[in-house]
Amino acid sequence: MITMKFSDNSDVVFMQQALALAKKGEYSARPNPCVGCVMVKDGKVIATGLHWQAGAAHAEVNALLQADCKGATCYVTLEPCSHHGRTPPCVQALIAAKVSRVVIASQDPNPLVRGKGIQSLMDAGIAVSVGLLEKEAIALNKGFYSRMQRNLPFVRAKIAMSLDAKVAMSNGESQWITTQAARNHAHLWRARSGAIITTSETVLHDNCRLTVRDEKALALDHNVKFQQPWRILVDSQLRVAKDAAIFHQPGKTTVVTLKQAKNHVVLPEKDGKVNLFALLSWLSDCEINDVMIEAGETFVGALLKLGLIDELLIYLSPKILGTEARSFAKLTGLSKLSDALQGTLTHVEKIDKDLFIIISMKENENDNQYN
Amino acid sequence: MITMKFSDNSDVVFMQQALALAKKGEYSARPNPCVGCVMVKDGKVIATGLHWQAGAAHAEVNALLQADCKGATCYVTLEPCSHHGRTPPCVQALIAAKVSRVVIASQDPNPLVRGKGIQSLMDAGIAVSVGLLEKEAIALNKGFYSRMQRNLPFVRAKIAMSLDAKVAMSNGESQWITTQAARNHAHLWRARSGAIITTSETVLHDNCRLTVRDEKALALDHNVKFQQPWRILVDSQLRVAKDAAIFHQPGKTTVVTLKQAKNHVVLPEKDGKVNLFALLSWLSDCEINDVMIEAGETFVGALLKLGLIDELLIYLSPKILGTEARSFAKLTGLSKLSDALQGTLTHVEKIDKDLFIIISMKENENDNQYN
Repeated sequence: MITMKFSDNSDVVFMQQALALAKKGEYSARPNPCVGCVMVKDGKVIATGLHWQAGAAHAEVNALLQADCKGATCYVTLEPCSHHGRTPPCVQALIAAKVSRVVIASQDPNPLVRGKGIQSLMDAGIAVSVGLLEKEAIALNKGFYSRMQRNLPFVRAKIAMSLDAKVAMSNGESQWITTQAARNHAHLWRARSGAIITTSETVLHDNCRLTVRDEKALALDHNVKFQQPWRILVDSQLRVAKDAAIFHQPGKTTVVTLKQAKNHVVLPEKDGKVNLFALLSWLSDCEINDVMIEAGETFVGALLKLGLIDELLIYLSPKILGTEARSFAKLTGLSKLSDALQGTLTHVEKIDKDLFIIISMKENENDNQYN
Repeated sequence: MITMKFSDNSDVVFMQQALALAKKGEYSARPNPCVGCVMVKDGKVIATGLHWQAGAAHAEVNALLQADCKGATCYVTLEPCSHHGRTPPCVQALIAAKVSRVVIASQDPNPLVRGKGIQSLMDAGIAVSVGLLEKEAIALNKGFYSRMQRNLPFVRAKIAMSLDAKVAMSNGESQWITTQAARNHAHLWRARSGAIITTSETVLHDNCRLTVRDEKALALDHNVKFQQPWRILVDSQLRVAKDAAIFHQPGKTTVVTLKQAKNHVVLPEKDGKVNLFALLSWLSDCEINDVMIEAGETFVGALLKLGLIDELLIYLSPKILGTEARSFAKLTGLSKLSDALQGTLTHVEKIDKDLFIIISMKENENDNQYN
């Protein structure tokens, strides 16, 4: 039914272009996925589009607006939608434009609509190929896939640590362990996240703001407004005062807690603290795809123990803070080497004097996404 | 007096060849430095040589044996010797062969002979250029430079650790944290070392052998015999029994201790343990250029605190061993971030599933070597 063959290498090149376009939306498309589209006629690109922002046109429609696409091949990184959401379905627009072929990188992860767009295109007599650079397309939208397929956001913990895996001195001093360049880099990860989770402990120590400070670095289209990530403060016992910096920044801060209080979100309890699984499920229900954790050893350790961290974003500084300093994760009760949590190194990059590494907390990164 | 100009790019190319030759000696030249030599006439390489083993011919002499080098340019990675050592001086051989020019990467680090070879060549009317790819040449012989310039070996600590900087579980279990490929790679570092230092603590836990097991991987000339590194067991209180594996391997094991005992080396005491500075000075006196430390957190921490570790060779496995596991270094009393030991990241390499990184414990790797 669905053809999986690709005519030649030019298919790969055009899909790579579509992926590069999709990536431009990574700071602004949420809660929608990043999608890019390239229209090709007679071997030439005649139109391109991407999805910049929820509520605005989808990638395919943005491309169709640019040229007469009759007889063209449409390269699109995600299966075109067949349903009325915030915008009319793209499938109908592609059929109306009389494109002759649609090449799709990845199917829609939403089990309720998955395959329906493809079926509608084929029913209209359009040739469809699916699966070209699928892994790359899914990697661009890890959070969206996660939310659609398991009702949880994709969770990254940012760790700025020393060689001895310490994130602060025993007195809490942690500013700064890594270089300015590494901290700027971490801001880009913040900007990709729908929500940042921190804790009362961290706020009481660092009085952190958790905002994206250099919006110009995001290179957004001038018509697109960047939304600061939603700041989530886990404060089970309501210890943080109202004058904390986190409450006085652009964007929204929400306190999640166990105590009834005005404007706060009360979540289920587990061992005297906010239930972390409930917290993440609730964020998924709020259409948050990507969550970044910026917190201390207790919180990160608890999430790791529950298997709720998908990736560690580690900024490793070539220094040694010593035995009394604070670790990045408190994780007790592992007694044998076979008890160790096993991750996979997926990315390494030198940033100024530090090393940036991404660890997937899946033992085998080649495992299918949440299947 | 000494010309520092290099005629053209071909000088660089030929010196790179000489450096690549020199590197072949890295497993066998000790206690001598690695040296390579290329003879060039009319833009063509007519002879090459390297120094394989102490007592055997030097690189320049090996090259001179291959061709008539009258009028040739000699590219050599280290200043030719002017004194009778284990072999006759190379300077006389070069003068006798009537080479017309000698290009030298680095001067002899030995203050007693430094510059004398260059002077003798110039006195004989030979053009001399010094300093081409000097940094690379010194990097090949860090241990030799260290011993000559500060009467200490160059000290590397090998650390196979997890993301949380742990090297063993609380019960001592540590086999294995890294992959086989990483462990094989570490054996090459062992093979480059004149001595491996371990402690009674490590031997009592791991019953380690500390030998180089795969000599074939070293790719030595078939006439060259590989010498196992000298194993140094620091056992202040003589706790290790004679049947420990380390005493029954090819090569030599020496116990250094505070107690008088037959065949053991007694060293000065510091705080109830062997004085570590005295240990390293003694090894330098024994003509050991490069030392590798394979020990636990107490010993590595003590060396770090004294500033006696030059490089950390870290094999980083993407796993988490937990809070109770043992750190790579016990280093107490650092209370402010400004107390942290500062290193420099000088090398990053992925080996199978692990990351191999080299940290120079100098704050600025561009500092001159021991000057």
